[in-house]
Amino acid sequence: MKRVGIVGYRGYSGAELIRLLQRHAHVEPVLIDHREAPGGTPAIRRSTPSARIPCTGQAVHQEGLAVVFLATPPEVSMELAPVMLSAGARVVDLSGAFRLRTPENYAAWYKQAHTQPELLAEAVYGLPEFCRNLIPAARLVSNPGCYPTAANLALRPLVQAGVVDRAAGIVCDAKSGASGAGRKPSLKTSFCEVTENFSAYSILHHRHVPEVLQVSGLEEHEFSFTAQLLPLHRGILETIYFRAPSVARVEDLLAIYERQYAAEPFVRLFNPPHVPDLRGVARTNFCDIGVAFDAPTKRAVVVSAIDNLVKGAAGQAIQNMNLMLGYPETEGLL
Amino acid sequence: MKRVGIVGYRGYSGAELIRLLQRHAHVEPVLIDHREAPGGTPAIRRSTPSARIPCTGQAVHQEGLAVVFLATPPEVSMELAPVMLSAGARVVDLSGAFRLRTPENYAAWYKQAHTQPELLAEAVYGLPEFCRNLIPAARLVSNPGCYPTAANLALRPLVQAGVVDRAAGIVCDAKSGASGAGRKPSLKTSFCEVTENFSAYSILHHRHVPEVLQVSGLEEHEFSFTAQLLPLHRGILETIYFRAPSVARVEDLLAIYERQYAAEPFVRLFNPPHVPDLRGVARTNFCDIGVAFDAPTKRAVVVSAIDNLVKGAAGQAIQNMNLMLGYPETEGLL
Amino acid sequence: MKRVGIVGYRGYSGAELIRLLQRHAHVEPVLIDHREAPGGTPAIRRSTPSARIPCTGQAVHQEGLAVVFLATPPEVSMELAPVMLSAGARVVDLSGAFRLRTPENYAAWYKQAHTQPELLAEAVYGLPEFCRNLIPAARLVSNPGCYPTAANLALRPLVQAGVVDRAAGIVCDAKSGASGAGRKPSLKTSFCEVTENFSAYSILHHRHVPEVLQVSGLEEHEFSFTAQLLPLHRGILETIYFRAPSVARVEDLLAIYERQYAAEPFVRLFNPPHVPDLRGVARTNFCDIGVAFDAPTKRAVVVSAIDNLVKGAAGQAIQNMNLMLGYPETEGLL
Amino acid sequence: MKRVGIVGYRGYSGAELIRLLQRHAHVEPVLIDHREAPGGTPAIRRSTPSARIPCTGQAVHQEGLAVVFLATPPEVSMELAPVMLSAGARVVDLSGAFRLRTPENYAAWYKQAHTQPELLAEAVYGLPEFCRNLIPAARLVSNPGCYPTAANLALRPLVQAGVVDRAAGIVCDAKSGASGAGRKPSLKTSFCEVTENFSAYSILHHRHVPEVLQVSGLEEHEFSFTAQLLPLHRGILETIYFRAPSVARVEDLLAIYERQYAAEPFVRLFNPPHVPDLRGVARTNFCDIGVAFDAPTKRAVVVSAIDNLVKGAAGQAIQNMNLMLGYPETEGLL
Repeated sequence: MKRVGIVGYRGYSGAELIRLLQRHAHVEPVLIDHREAPGGTPAIRRSTPSARIPCTGQAVHQEGLAVVFLATPPEVSMELAPVMLSAGARVVDLSGAFRLRTPENYAAWYKQAHTQPELLAEAVYGLPEFCRNLIPAARLVSNPGCYPTAANLALRPLVQAGVVDRAAGIVCDAKSGASGAGRKPSLKTSFCEVTENFSAYSILHHRHVPEVLQVSGLEEHEFSFTAQLLPLHRGILETIYFRAPSVARVEDLLAIYERQYAAEPFVRLFNPPHVPDLRGVARTNFCDIGVAFDAPTKRAVVVSAIDNLVKGAAGQAIQNMNLMLGYPETEGLL
Repeated sequence: MKRVGIVGYRGYSGAELIRLLQRHAHVEPVLIDHREAPGGTPAIRRSTPSARIPCTGQAVHQEGLAVVFLATPPEVSMELAPVMLSAGARVVDLSGAFRLRTPENYAAWYKQAHTQPELLAEAVYGLPEFCRNLIPAARLVSNPGCYPTAANLALRPLVQAGVVDRAAGIVCDAKSGASGAGRKPSLKTSFCEVTENFSAYSILHHRHVPEVLQVSGLEEHEFSFTAQLLPLHRGILETIYFRAPSVARVEDLLAIYERQYAAEPFVRLFNPPHVPDLRGVARTNFCDIGVAFDAPTKRAVVVSAIDNLVKGAAGQAIQNMNLMLGYPETEGLL
Repeated sequence: MKRVGIVGYRGYSGAELIRLLQRHAHVEPVLIDHREAPGGTPAIRRSTPSARIPCTGQAVHQEGLAVVFLATPPEVSMELAPVMLSAGARVVDLSGAFRLRTPENYAAWYKQAHTQPELLAEAVYGLPEFCRNLIPAARLVSNPGCYPTAANLALRPLVQAGVVDRAAGIVCDAKSGASGAGRKPSLKTSFCEVTENFSAYSILHHRHVPEVLQVSGLEEHEFSFTAQLLPLHRGILETIYFRAPSVARVEDLLAIYERQYAAEPFVRLFNPPHVPDLRGVARTNFCDIGVAFDAPTKRAVVVSAIDNLVKGAAGQAIQNMNLMLGYPETEGLL
Repeated sequence: MKRVGIVGYRGYSGAELIRLLQRHAHVEPVLIDHREAPGGTPAIRRSTPSARIPCTGQAVHQEGLAVVFLATPPEVSMELAPVMLSAGARVVDLSGAFRLRTPENYAAWYKQAHTQPELLAEAVYGLPEFCRNLIPAARLVSNPGCYPTAANLALRPLVQAGVVDRAAGIVCDAKSGASGAGRKPSLKTSFCEVTENFSAYSILHHRHVPEVLQVSGLEEHEFSFTAQLLPLHRGILETIYFRAPSVARVEDLLAIYERQYAAEPFVRLFNPPHVPDLRGVARTNFCDIGVAFDAPTKRAVVVSAIDNLVKGAAGQAIQNMNLMLGYPETEGLL
């Protein structure tokens, strides 16, 4: 039984990490108090609270934490990642701090300087379906963003197979539940603003765009992305449009996915005309992918769905941890 | 005070017609029992029930109804429209029966023969922003579909202005609240299936597509449309993607809309970077339109939002009735 | 056309006041900036913004505002009410500042001293169904709380008729939509905490309890009240339980209500076994009341429903304003 | 690995049984086709469908099913229970068919004759917290109703301890998510009728009332119950009001629960002033109980919450199965 730490355990991703780790056969979670206050009387009598330690390298070292999850904003992750690594823990960072390849790209999209360029150079991008071989030896794994996870699992096999008409452009219309905005109260995510409403934000300029480009191989001018807020708790569904001039039948597109994902435990393909919905992925680590194709006009639509808190955050982080620690990749996640 | 009839008054569009007509200064609604049962004791004591008549030409003639709204399925509308016209009433049909120009097109998309080709030839398409001059004299007005209303108000001015790169294709990603599926109980629209869910349907082949093509001037191979079900009651939001190679700034796109809609009471334009949401149009007859544009890459996104039961159904039907009967176009709708 | 001011116009009650006053035939709203920032570019182009003035007695006097609505917390209302009165405006206060009869009672339930005891003595409680005769001449009307409005309209006629077994106790189980908690962001009212959830708060000790006691004539030990948060935007439904040993049939209870409310425009009674729901009162100024009764055991249940933002706040405030200014009581509210 | 059958696997309780049983270490589910149609292509490619057999005694016998769950209406359960028992399977029935002790009581509340009085006499009521000793040897276990589970776990310890003032009456105000009404489409549970709404039904006369009386020991005239429909998927919360004249402090009430439930794995008690909410029990087999008490007036309020599909149906059914088959009671449920 190894011990693993969580910084930011009161946020939605952090709470999901606790929930999932409690089912894990080989690790147990330790809460790391960063700015969290002591807490007061627990609501439930006779509940055994999780172990808690202060957010210092010394405490992490003493506890012998094998992995520390940083479920924190990028500026906090840049500050804490070197502390945890020096304390002997390996790190899975759930923020955007270490996802883009260069400090320049980070500065351009996150509007702040990157303070850890050496760690950025070292960080391994933790999308197991495409980077699995690098993760076991990594000290620092950068957990992918929620929108890019759904987009890249849908797009990269097709782009690599050369079937997407890139000149005509690819549209990714993305919708996310409110938990994607985090737990910090704000008017934008208050109940009365979200219920019975639907709204777009960050049109064409969301900071997750460069992550899609980096993994899929597309260029910015080829890829139009809009993020939108759904009146529901969890889930991301992306409707992706493109033309596939060399494709004859919908089965050809499916065959590309079948080849890519034959052995993948967390990617599920749909039989046309079925396409995924959010109900099917809620509280799972699956990415569900379905395809529609109009043969005469070569227009294709791919629907990709994940739970933003699981495959889009905490679940994928545990998938990465499993790879780092040599456990079965699906442990605690099925 | 003129009297106007409603067939299908128990459906969501029919109920919305009653609600809106009760505020109208010049007409009062009469309910026409088509298959509706008598009703039993009203829930509210001392409430004055609306007048009700049977669904016969004789009754409509005796009542002297000026207009009859058909909030019925297309096959019922095809059956009832000639009856109402013979009885001396003018007709606003809210179904898809009289929206497409030819019986052949109707048969292809609605999967049934058109039984009233002469009436189809006579029917006037009731999108006042583009067909206002034909409506006052029409005997039979075909009220536009909900998705096409939002799409055509957004697309037609731009297509006509020639700024849309049609070769690269236009994507319209559409989302609708559950009232769009009607009031008839079905598993697909039951609460537990819709809440905390989001799903796509009729991908690329929705029967509202030909109506968009007919009004916007686009061709099928240029226009990709997906309908999706939102976990909310009312509202349609469409996110429309295209390239505008000749456009320099977002203001150029807005200027096209400004010219088109300067005098329109029910189209509201948004100042960038604001875009419409569903909250803003709920229970109104407005179509709200906003634009985003990335000048270096010429990518454009238009967001168009309506209340599917108002501008997408009952409100637009009353707007048409106002034009037919010579009342101010906005009467009862502001 | 008289002008009336709104302080706190960005809150949910304030926004509802604007929405309702825009339909009013005889007054127009003026926004009074208390702590509101200037605002920036409006989202909608060519929209005409409402008139705005600073929150000073001088400005209110210069504008000649007939009435000022205070949609503010009680401590702000205590500060502003004398300012507005001195400036020549009459005041409708939507907070709890002037609802309880004595400063001692206020201090006990609101946990702060009352700073305006003379105004408290002068204030008229604005529940028109029971205090209509005092409102026209009042300078300061205290608009009732949302929970007490639904409770008192249901309870007071029965308590006064002597049919309630007070010794056995009355239970009022109250449920409110999230707008009742106001617009200020907090974790408790954030979307992810409220959706798919239901929770109780202020059990037995809600600060609206003394207002129910004051109007209904019940005593605290006789009346058990729990407030609960519904995952919806607007509406309060209270399920009220008591025994009525002298009553023979449900019609006897209804007859008491019929006598009391025969001429009331905003109280609707339901025919058993129908009872009100929240859908029926949404966006209306109605209080809907229904009754169930088990004759053998003398157990009675009353269901009382209002829209918390209308009859529970802004609508009732306008009803009071209509009485103060001599307009028809229902103007702008039907 | 034993095999257990599910009749009614397409309903919400049946689907929840499948979901939970797939996590169980010692049994695997077999679907029994009662009226279900074959199904067509599965949505997900390469998914392994569960085993399916026809609904005959012969098939159940051949499969050697150890237990059959009947997630069916009571009239179907009365028909199938003897068939399954004759085929050698033990039965857990999730309907109301075998919950009340006498055919007369069943006929009075369910409005139909009981066709299996001998089986009714034999059936064991499956509320493990109070009937644990009878369940291991039972052939036929009647799984408790959802409302009664929450009510009886809250009420029975207090009634038995003699602290409830029965003469003054007990009120149980119950709220349930829409899944409690089952999966069959109906207008009452369609999305547009439920969202943004809250409504009461079966006031004082719900068919779950006699089940509460039977277990709690209360009499009908002492117990007022109202069921209400929440705009959410799953969960029941009951707010229970009574007087406790002999109680001095809230801790005294908690002590009664502590004694009763010290060793219970699925009952959680709350520290005042915390009380349960629905979020806390969603997708768990817990019943959460919290208490508020006003010492001067002896008024008490108990809040009891469960997931209606888990502790209120499928989870409790598996808890019963575990007891019947000699597995740890919590297997598959934590």
